[in-house]
Amino acid sequence: MILEGRYTRSIRRTADGKGACILDQRQLPWEIRWVEIRSAEEAAVAIREMWTRGAPMIGATAAHGLAMALDQDPSDAGLAAAHAMLLATRPTAINLRWALDAVRDAVAPLPPTERAAAAWARADAICDEDVELCRAIGEHGLDLLRELHAKNPDRPLNILTHCNAGWLATVDYGTATAPIYLAHDAGIPVHVWVDETRPRNQGALLTAFELRNHGVPHTVIADNAGGLLMMRGQVDAVIVGTDRVTANGDVCNKIGTYLKALAAHDNDVPFYVALPYTTFDPATPSGDAIPIEERAAEELTRLTGPGENGLATVRVTDSPAANPAFDVTPARLVTGYITERGVVDKI
Amino acid sequence: MILEGRYTRSIRRTADGKGACILDQRQLPWEIRWVEIRSAEEAAVAIREMWTRGAPMIGATAAHGLAMALDQDPSDAGLAAAHAMLLATRPTAINLRWALDAVRDAVAPLPPTERAAAAWARADAICDEDVELCRAIGEHGLDLLRELHAKNPDRPLNILTHCNAGWLATVDYGTATAPIYLAHDAGIPVHVWVDETRPRNQGALLTAFELRNHGVPHTVIADNAGGLLMMRGQVDAVIVGTDRVTANGDVCNKIGTYLKALAAHDNDVPFYVALPYTTFDPATPSGDAIPIEERAAEELTRLTGPGENGLATVRVTDSPAANPAFDVTPARLVTGYITERGVVDKI
Repeated sequence: MILEGRYTRSIRRTADGKGACILDQRQLPWEIRWVEIRSAEEAAVAIREMWTRGAPMIGATAAHGLAMALDQDPSDAGLAAAHAMLLATRPTAINLRWALDAVRDAVAPLPPTERAAAAWARADAICDEDVELCRAIGEHGLDLLRELHAKNPDRPLNILTHCNAGWLATVDYGTATAPIYLAHDAGIPVHVWVDETRPRNQGALLTAFELRNHGVPHTVIADNAGGLLMMRGQVDAVIVGTDRVTANGDVCNKIGTYLKALAAHDNDVPFYVALPYTTFDPATPSGDAIPIEERAAEELTRLTGPGENGLATVRVTDSPAANPAFDVTPARLVTGYITERGVVDKI
Repeated sequence: MILEGRYTRSIRRTADGKGACILDQRQLPWEIRWVEIRSAEEAAVAIREMWTRGAPMIGATAAHGLAMALDQDPSDAGLAAAHAMLLATRPTAINLRWALDAVRDAVAPLPPTERAAAAWARADAICDEDVELCRAIGEHGLDLLRELHAKNPDRPLNILTHCNAGWLATVDYGTATAPIYLAHDAGIPVHVWVDETRPRNQGALLTAFELRNHGVPHTVIADNAGGLLMMRGQVDAVIVGTDRVTANGDVCNKIGTYLKALAAHDNDVPFYVALPYTTFDPATPSGDAIPIEERAAEELTRLTGPGENGLATVRVTDSPAANPAFDVTPARLVTGYITERGVVDKI
C-alpha cells in the first residue's frame, strides 16, 4: 500500500514490540492519525468502535490484542477471557474468530511463560500471511481484469466496488482492490466507480482515499447509481470483498452489496467476490444462518465531515432510523470468487 | 395534507392573486418557509434549483409561472419565450411539458388581453385536477393495501418507498404516499420504510417529514438496506412515484428505484408505481430514450444539516463524483401502476 507516497502496512508492531499501531479510520480521509493499541481492551474498543474495520484487519487487530492480554495474564483463564472479550466485538466477521482461534490454538499447549511470545509471533505471522494472501488474490484477479480489458482495449476498464475492501481493511493490498492495484501498476487503464456506501460512507471516505493515494482514477457515486451505470454499459465488472462466505457460497458483505449483485446479474455484468479462504465459513450452511449486526441509528442520522471551522457533525434526519450493517448475496448471483488459490465459480 | 396540524396545499395563489406561494423544500424539514414566486423567471429558478420538486409540483409551478409571464407580456412571442424558458428547467419530468402545453393551448387561441386571466384559471385548474387525481390514486391504492393487510392482519403493513412522491411533490396527497395516508386514516396499521434517497436525501428529509406531520409510523433506512429487509420478509409492498412512464411501461424515477425493483422482484414483493396519467408518455417508446439528468457533483459531495450552531455544510468526500439523478425501471419489474383510473398491470 502507498500512503502519502510511501509504502507501509495498515498494522505494525510498536517500536517496543508490545503494542500495535493502526490507522484511526474514523478520521480518514480528513486526518491521517496512527494510534497505538496497548492492551486487549484497547484492541476491543478499536474493533467495536470501528477505529479499524474490514474482516482481515479485525482479525489481525484481535490477534495482536490477544497477545497483549497474554503479556498481562498468560493463564488459561486469562487466555479464555481475552478470547471471549475480543470475539464479542463484532458478530458478523468470520475472520475475527479465525484469527483468535489461530492464536489460542498456537499458545494453549504451551506453558504460560511461553505463551505471550508465541502469541506475538502468531499475530505477526497472521499479518505476513494476510499480505501474501491479498497479493495472491491480486495476481489472480489481475488475469481476470486483463481478459476483461482485452474485450474493449480502446477504453478504460470500469470496475464498481462497494464499501472498502482495500488495504485499510487488510494488512496490505486489500481483497477487492488487490486486482485493481495490480492492474493499475501493470498499465491497464482502470477506472473505479466507488459506491459511497451509506451509512458509514466507507467508499467515499476510505476506498476513494486509498485509490487517490495510489493514483488510480476513480469516481464516487451514490449507492443508488450503480444500477443505471450497469444498464448503460458503464461497468465492466463488480468486485467486492466479504465478511463471510457460507458453505453454499452465499456472501455476507456490507449492506447494499446484494442490490449491486442483482443489478449486475440483470445486466450481464460479472460480479466477483474477492476473499482469502480464511473468510470462508464451511460450518455455516447458508446466508440465512448469519447473524446480521444492527448498528446504532446515529450512523445514519448524523454525518461528520469538514465544515467551515474544522470537523463538524450535522443531523441527516430527526426521524427514527434502522441500520442493519450487512446483507447476504445469494451464491446464484456470484460470477466467481477471487481467492489466493485462483478464481473459482464455486467455493 | 397536514402541515403542523393544519390542512393546506403545497402551492397556492398569493393574496393578490398575482403570484404563487410554495414551500421552500431546500430548508425542510429544518425550517418551514413559504416563498412567493412573482415571475416566470422566479418560477424557473424555483424549479431548476429545486426549491420545489416532484413531477406534479414542477408542472403546477411552471403553469403558474407561465401565467405570471403573460401578466407581463401576453404576445405570441412572450408566450413562446416563457414556455421555452420554463420547459428547459428540468429535462426528465414529463409533467413539466404537459402542464406548460396545457396552459399554452388554453390561451393561444385567445386575444392577448384575455390570455393572462385564462392562464391563471388553467393553472388553478391544474392544481385542482392534481388534487383530485392524487385522491383517486389514493383510493385505488387503499383497496390494494387493504387486501395486502388482510393477508397478515396481526402485524403492521410494511411499505417501502423511495425518494419523495408525497404531497410535497404534488398539490396534495402525493402519488406514492396517497394510498399510505388513506390507509392510515382508514385505521390500517401501516409502517413505512423510508429510503434515505441519496444524494439529495429526499426520503430522509421530505418523506419522513410528511409522514411525521401526518402521524404515520416510519423508519428511515439507508438506500442500501431495502434488499435485506425484503429478503427477511419485512416489506409487504414497494410503492414509488415516477417522473415519466414510457409507452412500454418503463418507469423513470429517482436514481436507485431500479435497484429496489430488482430486489422486490427477487423476493416476490409487489412493486407498485403510483402516477396520474399525465405522467404517462406514450410518445416515448421505452426507457432507453429518456434523457437522464446529470446533476452537480456537489449534491453528493456536500451535505447540509443542523449542526451545533445552526445549519452547516460539511464535505462528504473530496474525490471526483458523478450524480445521475434518475434511472429506468423496466416494465417487467413492475407489479402494477396505481392510477386515478384504477390499478393496472399494463399501462
